[in-house]
Amino acid sequence: MRFVPAFLGLLALHSAASLSAQSAPPLGTRETGLRRIFTEALAHGQACSNLRTLLTNHPGRLAGSTALAGAERWGEQTLNGLDLDRVWRQDVMVPHWERGAPESVRLLPPAGVRGETVALAAVALGGSIATPPAGLTAAVIEVHSLEALASLGREKITGKIVFFNRPMDPAEPEPGVAYGGAVDQRSRGPRAAAKFGAVAALVRSMTQTLDDVPHTGNTAYRAEGENIPAAALSTLAADRLSAALAANPALQVEMKIHSRWHPDALAHNIIGEIRGSESPDEIIVVGGHLDSWDITPGAHDNGSGIVQSIEVLRIFRALGYQPRHTIRCVLFTNEENGLRGGTAYAAYARASGEKHLLAVESDEGGFTPRGFTFGSAQGPVHRRAQRWLPLFEPYGILAFTRGAGGADVGPLMALGVTVGNLIPDGQRYFDHHHTVTDSFDKVHPRELALGAGALAALIWLVDQEGL
Amino acid sequence: MRFVPAFLGLLALHSAASLSAQSAPPLGTRETGLRRIFTEALAHGQACSNLRTLLTNHPGRLAGSTALAGAERWGEQTLNGLDLDRVWRQDVMVPHWERGAPESVRLLPPAGVRGETVALAAVALGGSIATPPAGLTAAVIEVHSLEALASLGREKITGKIVFFNRPMDPAEPEPGVAYGGAVDQRSRGPRAAAKFGAVAALVRSMTQTLDDVPHTGNTAYRAEGENIPAAALSTLAADRLSAALAANPALQVEMKIHSRWHPDALAHNIIGEIRGSESPDEIIVVGGHLDSWDITPGAHDNGSGIVQSIEVLRIFRALGYQPRHTIRCVLFTNEENGLRGGTAYAAYARASGEKHLLAVESDEGGFTPRGFTFGSAQGPVHRRAQRWLPLFEPYGILAFTRGAGGADVGPLMALGVTVGNLIPDGQRYFDHHHTVTDSFDKVHPRELALGAGALAALIWLVDQEGL
Repeated sequence: MRFVPAFLGLLALHSAASLSAQSAPPLGTRETGLRRIFTEALAHGQACSNLRTLLTNHPGRLAGSTALAGAERWGEQTLNGLDLDRVWRQDVMVPHWERGAPESVRLLPPAGVRGETVALAAVALGGSIATPPAGLTAAVIEVHSLEALASLGREKITGKIVFFNRPMDPAEPEPGVAYGGAVDQRSRGPRAAAKFGAVAALVRSMTQTLDDVPHTGNTAYRAEGENIPAAALSTLAADRLSAALAANPALQVEMKIHSRWHPDALAHNIIGEIRGSESPDEIIVVGGHLDSWDITPGAHDNGSGIVQSIEVLRIFRALGYQPRHTIRCVLFTNEENGLRGGTAYAAYARASGEKHLLAVESDEGGFTPRGFTFGSAQGPVHRRAQRWLPLFEPYGILAFTRGAGGADVGPLMALGVTVGNLIPDGQRYFDHHHTVTDSFDKVHPRELALGAGALAALIWLVDQEGL
Repeated sequence: MRFVPAFLGLLALHSAASLSAQSAPPLGTRETGLRRIFTEALAHGQACSNLRTLLTNHPGRLAGSTALAGAERWGEQTLNGLDLDRVWRQDVMVPHWERGAPESVRLLPPAGVRGETVALAAVALGGSIATPPAGLTAAVIEVHSLEALASLGREKITGKIVFFNRPMDPAEPEPGVAYGGAVDQRSRGPRAAAKFGAVAALVRSMTQTLDDVPHTGNTAYRAEGENIPAAALSTLAADRLSAALAANPALQVEMKIHSRWHPDALAHNIIGEIRGSESPDEIIVVGGHLDSWDITPGAHDNGSGIVQSIEVLRIFRALGYQPRHTIRCVLFTNEENGLRGGTAYAAYARASGEKHLLAVESDEGGFTPRGFTFGSAQGPVHRRAQRWLPLFEPYGILAFTRGAGGADVGPLMALGVTVGNLIPDGQRYFDHHHTVTDSFDKVHPRELALGAGALAALIWLVDQEGL
């Protein structure tokens, strides 16, 4: 807590309490409060119109891009429009990777046979280095795991393009778990392949749909050495390549990637807050990440989390609710390829000495909310939160469980902060994740609004009663 | 229960038990059983491909139509393809209403003013009588409830078109509840307006979206007298008409509806079953309705319920599961404008004396399943079912509550049968309900499969342990 001379502190408390008594209805009973919050979100919500503005004007908000800079200005203006107590930017240096001219991956006709090359739907992975400008051509070896890669050994891999083609498990009921079980191929596969002498890597897109839309995403980047060009294939293209290789293992693929790394760039966390009337130095954070991959409008990832976080403050203002603690909305920068925004905010929190009661994130899509997870060094916070579950049932929110927070609030956990994560229905999330199709039309206005209401309701209860 | 000579009954029991021991693994522990069922549904499911076939070849399956007859043949063939113990049809006489040539609703220019008429997106309500062939033109009076209609009185209504324009409540978190709070305007409004001398009725579409897609649905039909033509306007058309009337209450609308009532037609419930090895005369029913409105492919309403019900039997066959009780899939006919299929099946159940342990329905859309409701004359069955909730949690199914069954299994309740209802996420259902847009692309393959798995899992547990 900041140092405040004792009498000033008392004075501030007194003023705030008076203000609270005069102008701050506490929204009634718990039931009434939730109903007013959800009604505001559903019947008068601005999350959807904010999302349309963000996606229309600032798609492809990758760290270091002018699109992200534009989105930052939009975020600041939008928060300023809510008549908050403070809106500011936190400087954050972010990685700056650029895709450059469109990539291509082509299957060549068999050696000695005249024929056309076949375009395979592909996108370079974020962090990939470029191929030579004229492209790179090599034979392809298909593997289904990093273990299988290692067991092949250097001799069989050297000079080849390694093709990671293990699908996300279709039998796994929770797509996020299936994603976690397959994404090592994308995040660690290319570097592992490079170690064994591969010249490039291809990775099956991380989705359970079969279509021709490739999904980008981060691959581990290392400043020096052992990096190779890497791209994701659409699931249909992956199936096509796999079948072609089964028929003729000597087939070659040509890859062209024109990406480039620049020096780190200046970006910002965009922050707005309503100052608490009783404990202004005790903070409740709600946030999501403002950046997105370069190829996507970033609707579910994570435009929805951004507009829901802003909506929490708007709902409190619209209902005339004066919180006891400071409610802070953080639009984190650079989640996708660096987590520098979340890391920088945690550093700020540590340095400022502010006490954070809860930091809750929305970064799993703007679908119908189903629950929250809570992570805390202070024991099973989720069990204490469960006393509120009956209040949330009418809104279809049925589970408060133990779990991690979102990525951006994760670094706060090391400071002892309780983190939370809004859990929406997950079945459709990976259909569009990190693709051109993660667009405004994929978000349902009521589902988005319910998520915003859920965040505001949780924060209202924490503000009123503590966790 | 049917009369079976005692020694034959014992013999049957013995044979079945031997068969069960030899060829019917009980799927392992509860946890293993659910995992195998959901894996079969998710990774090898045929619900989605069945849905595509049904919708492609048999859209617009209204009672009495050739489309419904085609769908019946498809249903029978599909069930026959599962190598069941019995597949049959139950004759049901159904109402036969036909839309005829496309309807139109046009806003006329003000009296004495030359100008173009404005087409308002509209569909005749099911059951509506026709206008005169050349159309019907009258002034319009807007009301927001049947009570408001009654308070206007006969004088103000006579000779007018009554326009019911109360929206579904946007603040209601559960769209089904909002539908229930508005649908009296469609189901009872036209007849009420006729009583007060109205010449026709227009009704705002039952949806929370704002678009130009009109939603049909049933309006109460009476054989003699007091029926007037009735149509639904899209929500945007309703807003447009409302604004036009506010500016000029004397404006007139022209309606043309060419519908026709025919004599009742022969249709069928399509029924397939796996005969129980221990208690073949004790039945567990799973079903949905095969008919749809004439203008729609009927994907969520109720193609999804049909293919999920079929999928339950397919899953049991694929896993080699021999149920103890008879598991019966019923594709009910004529839910939309008569409920004759559900009524006829209940009459059959009463006459046959078969004992029904449970009749569970899927008719709330093929979205991510969230729970089941149970209705029973035998007390709080849902509480007993709740012992299984921890098993369903990994599949996102978190609520077993008291409630009605679906419409088709409803008539069984009067016989003392416990009824159940699969409850999926409801936020998107009324976007497409009873419209041309309720099409295959609106159904998510995994969400559909999870619903089928949930039905199969529940029925497996009831078959093994009783409710």
